[in-house]
Amino acid sequence: MDQPLRVAVTGAAGQIGYQLVFRIAAGEMLGRERSLQLNLLEIPPAMDALNGVVMELDDCAFPLVKGIVPTDSPETAFANVDIAILVGSRPRSPGMERRDLLEANGEIFTIQGKALNDCAARDVKVLVVGNPANTNCLIALRSAPDLSPTQFCAMTRLDHNRALAQLAHKTACHVSEIKGLAVWGNHSPTMFPELGSTTVAGKSALSLVDMDWYGNEFIPAVQQRGAAILQARGFSSAASAANAAIEQVRDWHLGTELVTSMGVYSTGNYGISEEIVFSYPVTCDADGVHIVENRVLDQFSREKIAITEQELVDERDAIKHLI
Amino acid sequence: MDQPLRVAVTGAAGQIGYQLVFRIAAGEMLGRERSLQLNLLEIPPAMDALNGVVMELDDCAFPLVKGIVPTDSPETAFANVDIAILVGSRPRSPGMERRDLLEANGEIFTIQGKALNDCAARDVKVLVVGNPANTNCLIALRSAPDLSPTQFCAMTRLDHNRALAQLAHKTACHVSEIKGLAVWGNHSPTMFPELGSTTVAGKSALSLVDMDWYGNEFIPAVQQRGAAILQARGFSSAASAANAAIEQVRDWHLGTELVTSMGVYSTGNYGISEEIVFSYPVTCDADGVHIVENRVLDQFSREKIAITEQELVDERDAIKHLI
Repeated sequence: MDQPLRVAVTGAAGQIGYQLVFRIAAGEMLGRERSLQLNLLEIPPAMDALNGVVMELDDCAFPLVKGIVPTDSPETAFANVDIAILVGSRPRSPGMERRDLLEANGEIFTIQGKALNDCAARDVKVLVVGNPANTNCLIALRSAPDLSPTQFCAMTRLDHNRALAQLAHKTACHVSEIKGLAVWGNHSPTMFPELGSTTVAGKSALSLVDMDWYGNEFIPAVQQRGAAILQARGFSSAASAANAAIEQVRDWHLGTELVTSMGVYSTGNYGISEEIVFSYPVTCDADGVHIVENRVLDQFSREKIAITEQELVDERDAIKHLI
Repeated sequence: MDQPLRVAVTGAAGQIGYQLVFRIAAGEMLGRERSLQLNLLEIPPAMDALNGVVMELDDCAFPLVKGIVPTDSPETAFANVDIAILVGSRPRSPGMERRDLLEANGEIFTIQGKALNDCAARDVKVLVVGNPANTNCLIALRSAPDLSPTQFCAMTRLDHNRALAQLAHKTACHVSEIKGLAVWGNHSPTMFPELGSTTVAGKSALSLVDMDWYGNEFIPAVQQRGAAILQARGFSSAASAANAAIEQVRDWHLGTELVTSMGVYSTGNYGISEEIVFSYPVTCDADGVHIVENRVLDQFSREKIAITEQELVDERDAIKHLI
């Protein structure tokens, strides 16, 4: 058998982590033939809970799991890891300004970026889930100068999947019949789920829906979906976020079949500002992540993209002393 | 493609349900080629939370999921279902006697057994997870006279997996090297995890451990594992319970590779009282569940089995007006 892949998950005892680690351990992310070691990072006050998670992982008797390392040290968590999923982040507390939130998370992702730089496998892939994900990802990758920025991405797969679900409901089709959809920009309420190149059962999506629904129902529904779920469940989306992380890493590691959406380090594609982490339509293969080129973007799309781009530039400016 | 399999889960918005339904939807229970419909039952006060779970299931854009039916009606939930996983049950509240707990759950499982009898597919398979699982299962199957008792089982796979994990740690082997282990009796602190026919990497388990560890450490650790996890996590075992349910149904539906443990309706095998739901070593194939026969049980094992058998007889006597 191959060497076990080493997978690190931060915030492993949190709501998303508790959904994520069992599915990874069952082989859903890297395949049912691939053995793995799980390195689970938590902050010191959560170590008892993390030990409970480890006990439950033991109690699943997963055939693929060859080792579990619970730790509160980023250096231990990231030692020689092939994949790192950065879920843990500081949530916004009442009265906290967005700038304070960026700053508080800046510290976490500076430390973790440095630890990845110093300890991880040289070809590590790093997915940032913890919010504000795009800018946390930017801080992490700038804190890891010995790694390539292409080894880091921010999760917009949940937004992508939410957009698929909304469009499938509207057109009474199955999600598996939708192709070409993409989410642009920031994982925030400014994100732009774009239908211009999307097909549903082979037909142009924009021939099946009207612009009023697209602009005034679909886009806000995707942008505000997290709040709607929080309202219904009384808790934020954990299972669907974990599922999106699994799918995004699986596609990155094993290759995509379809166009998907990932937040990647911009080098100016589509005229977007450089040096921000921006969600684009992408495909993945053994050579890495490829931004889909030559999409036609109409005036409506360009305006929506400009708004989310500006937000990311502002976020970068707010934490520029950290990068 | 085949017709979607219809799978009902009760208590679908609870802690175990929230872990379970996403993994079922991803194809972990019935295979990654098998499309399915999910019927999700909750009690009326939990319908908002259940709708949040359905929103998140939508937001996973699972290719295999062809429909989701959230409901508070057992008849709707069980209509033509091929598999029913009964997770929801009344937990013990402070000051509640065991008899009161059996009675409160007796109502739930009487209603659900009748609804399965009237509405489910004629070859439905029913797994009872909600505690007290064995006696809840007995009530359900006796409330479904048109179905065979062999179509019902109670979950002892979590206990089985917990025993595997403890033995693997003790012998410094991997869980996948252990064969023949079985849990006998009730899913309760009287259960008996038996090592008499167990091998570890081909060697007799009882040649690798001493009787003091077996009787005074291993058995109590497996029996009390749920309490230990509750203490560490602050919440009861949800992910590992959901995992066990997935594995038990998968083995039942697709067949076992190894001996496992399931609570089945006793017809007297090994001299156990009839008409209780008792965990035995079993295998599964297309013909159903088969109790492993002719195991040699020494005096120690017979004493342990008698204790858990007596508990189940007492539970049956406490609810005999319901069956």
